[in-house]
Amino acid sequence: MINKTPPKGMRDFLPSELALRNQTLAKIKEAYVSCGFNEIETPCVDDINLLMSKQSGENEKLMYKILKRGEKLEKASDGELCDLGLRYELTLSLARYCANNAGVIPPVFKAIQVGPVFRADRPQKGRYRQFVQCDIDIIGEESILAETDLILATVKALKNVGLDDFTIKINDRRILKRLAAFCGFCEKDFEQVFISLDKLDKIGLDGVKKELESDFESEKVEKLLFVADKICSATSPIDECAKLLDGIEKEIGELKQIISAVKSCSNANLVYDITLVRGLSYYTGAIFEINASGVPYALGGGGRYDGLLGKITGTQTPACGFSIGFERIVDLLAERKVTPQRKTYIALIVPKEYADQTEKIFLAAEKLRQNGENCGVYKKMKNFPYQLKVLNEIGCDVFYIYEDGNIKKI
Amino acid sequence: MINKTPPKGMRDFLPSELALRNQTLAKIKEAYVSCGFNEIETPCVDDINLLMSKQSGENEKLMYKILKRGEKLEKASDGELCDLGLRYELTLSLARYCANNAGVIPPVFKAIQVGPVFRADRPQKGRYRQFVQCDIDIIGEESILAETDLILATVKALKNVGLDDFTIKINDRRILKRLAAFCGFCEKDFEQVFISLDKLDKIGLDGVKKELESDFESEKVEKLLFVADKICSATSPIDECAKLLDGIEKEIGELKQIISAVKSCSNANLVYDITLVRGLSYYTGAIFEINASGVPYALGGGGRYDGLLGKITGTQTPACGFSIGFERIVDLLAERKVTPQRKTYIALIVPKEYADQTEKIFLAAEKLRQNGENCGVYKKMKNFPYQLKVLNEIGCDVFYIYEDGNIKKI
Repeated sequence: MINKTPPKGMRDFLPSELALRNQTLAKIKEAYVSCGFNEIETPCVDDINLLMSKQSGENEKLMYKILKRGEKLEKASDGELCDLGLRYELTLSLARYCANNAGVIPPVFKAIQVGPVFRADRPQKGRYRQFVQCDIDIIGEESILAETDLILATVKALKNVGLDDFTIKINDRRILKRLAAFCGFCEKDFEQVFISLDKLDKIGLDGVKKELESDFESEKVEKLLFVADKICSATSPIDECAKLLDGIEKEIGELKQIISAVKSCSNANLVYDITLVRGLSYYTGAIFEINASGVPYALGGGGRYDGLLGKITGTQTPACGFSIGFERIVDLLAERKVTPQRKTYIALIVPKEYADQTEKIFLAAEKLRQNGENCGVYKKMKNFPYQLKVLNEIGCDVFYIYEDGNIKKI
Repeated sequence: MINKTPPKGMRDFLPSELALRNQTLAKIKEAYVSCGFNEIETPCVDDINLLMSKQSGENEKLMYKILKRGEKLEKASDGELCDLGLRYELTLSLARYCANNAGVIPPVFKAIQVGPVFRADRPQKGRYRQFVQCDIDIIGEESILAETDLILATVKALKNVGLDDFTIKINDRRILKRLAAFCGFCEKDFEQVFISLDKLDKIGLDGVKKELESDFESEKVEKLLFVADKICSATSPIDECAKLLDGIEKEIGELKQIISAVKSCSNANLVYDITLVRGLSYYTGAIFEINASGVPYALGGGGRYDGLLGKITGTQTPACGFSIGFERIVDLLAERKVTPQRKTYIALIVPKEYADQTEKIFLAAEKLRQNGENCGVYKKMKNFPYQLKVLNEIGCDVFYIYEDGNIKKI
């Protein structure tokens, strides 16, 4: 017998679950579109060379590779067995898309990209092996118009799905680098330092300290944690940061302007956090992350990645993006008992003795649909109370019974 | 440099292309939902044992296989390298879904399933390596309520997307078998005979004849083609069929009833065609196919497959489905210059000298959105006429220019 469960970490969706997913996605897209973003689509599959270009940090290791076929496989049996892979994020595909469609898309392009991505990750709460990512990106805009636009659109999307109690954290990779240099770390060690610092909310201050001290001098580590803590606990962290670190006046000025514009144009809670790192190595400037009260993981994140398109396409192009953690948002809405809106669903129940009156039955069903309501035809089961119960569970609100050309509400 | 095109046979979609796809899909789903179908979703990836269960004819050979990972791959290096594959159709996934969710879904379940499927097919017009399938299925209903329901819902979906000039052909696998037996073919040869007969519209009568005569006696082949032609060219093919073949009274009666009910409840052109075969080997009863005038390939197809669920799940369950060839429908709509409806898209153009007034700019944009219109912010380019042109191409209908806190329509 064949295994009836989906592959490990992947999911079947029941109608009620899918309805919530579809409604949530529609509301997110509606907000994005209202802000002038344009939806595009790329394949789930991409060239393995693109997927192995070492731009997406750890995610690359989680890739599903697709076996070569036919002759190609025979010739490859000693070497590389795969020429394609399933995408594990959408940004690499977007970079390729922009190169492929240059000249057709505008020089500044505001893209929405939504679709399934695949990671052979250890399945756990909020983490799946096939999941939907939901990205907006602005390609070709080097100024903070992009960051401001992306954050405002994301705020609008979250509010549109019914989330209000979220905080967006912001930082800048260039400030992080300045902090690391200020504390005596060498440039080659920055990434490693950031990866440890990123774990602050998971393993705590002592954990980060222990991890860093196994590779670096105590003095540097202590200075880093002291300065970070001093900034975090100040009344105005961003001003404290400006006071303690020099050479970052431009970056601080930009962050302040982003925060101020976002706050004027929405009631979003946008805060500066010097400890925000974001894992992907391709970020070059501002970085953001969404957190909600009582939720132990980020609901989304993004940032500026000015170098990535150049590496993939050969043409330097500024770019900035914000990704909503769609699965986590849907899980949160489901926990909060948000139910999708829908039309009345009428079940027209046909007793067995009339089941061959197909013509009259479907004419009756069509009549029931005339007020814009949905109607499905079902033959009456022996265990009628059970039938009503299960039909109710998939959303039937109203029941009619068919009787020799007539229908009767029950 | 990395290859910028998508993998062979797969596609990037521009915003205008995707808008037509999304609108078409929404209209198809709307029709299905109004007929009481419930949307479900399954993963793109499935267990290789399910995908290699030899239920889907030739499609299985076109499967993309996914390489095992880590330890599993090391242990497998001599034997089977893959444990997962990309689905190449949706019906196998649906069968697995029904087994996995038995007890949660109702005993008679009317499912919509839409999603990408993958086939390493030779790319050609109307045929892609990643494409969307759009299926409805009724699980658990053994009577022709299912066939009638599916055909009526499909007719409604096609009309909803704007197609009116289509024909639906219907036949029954059991009648085909009776025909083959009547002409002297042995049961073990039926599938091969049907595969040849299926090519009638591609290679013509002479082609089919030649192909069959290379394996079977001329006498049988000639009888088959003579009878088929006699039925096709009769004033009422279905009555002619009933006259020529015996032992199929029940099947003929059912088909007549389906045709009559569909015609009463819609103005669909539903015709009997003894030469309709449909390639998939799992069909057991009625089979259908959609054709449109001037289109050389089927726009969809389906049929009854009462045996499949039992083979996959161990529990015999009647089932019947109808699949719309989504890509072909969209290609056809695009050829016919159908353009998706959409809201007004305002571009707010910001000259460089004002670009740092982010707060005022996004407040102005938000104001432009207040009448429900979409509005995107763009910095003014040096080549302004070019910018207007490309923005217009992605759908901007109205342009405003920002000037120190004020906006002006241009």
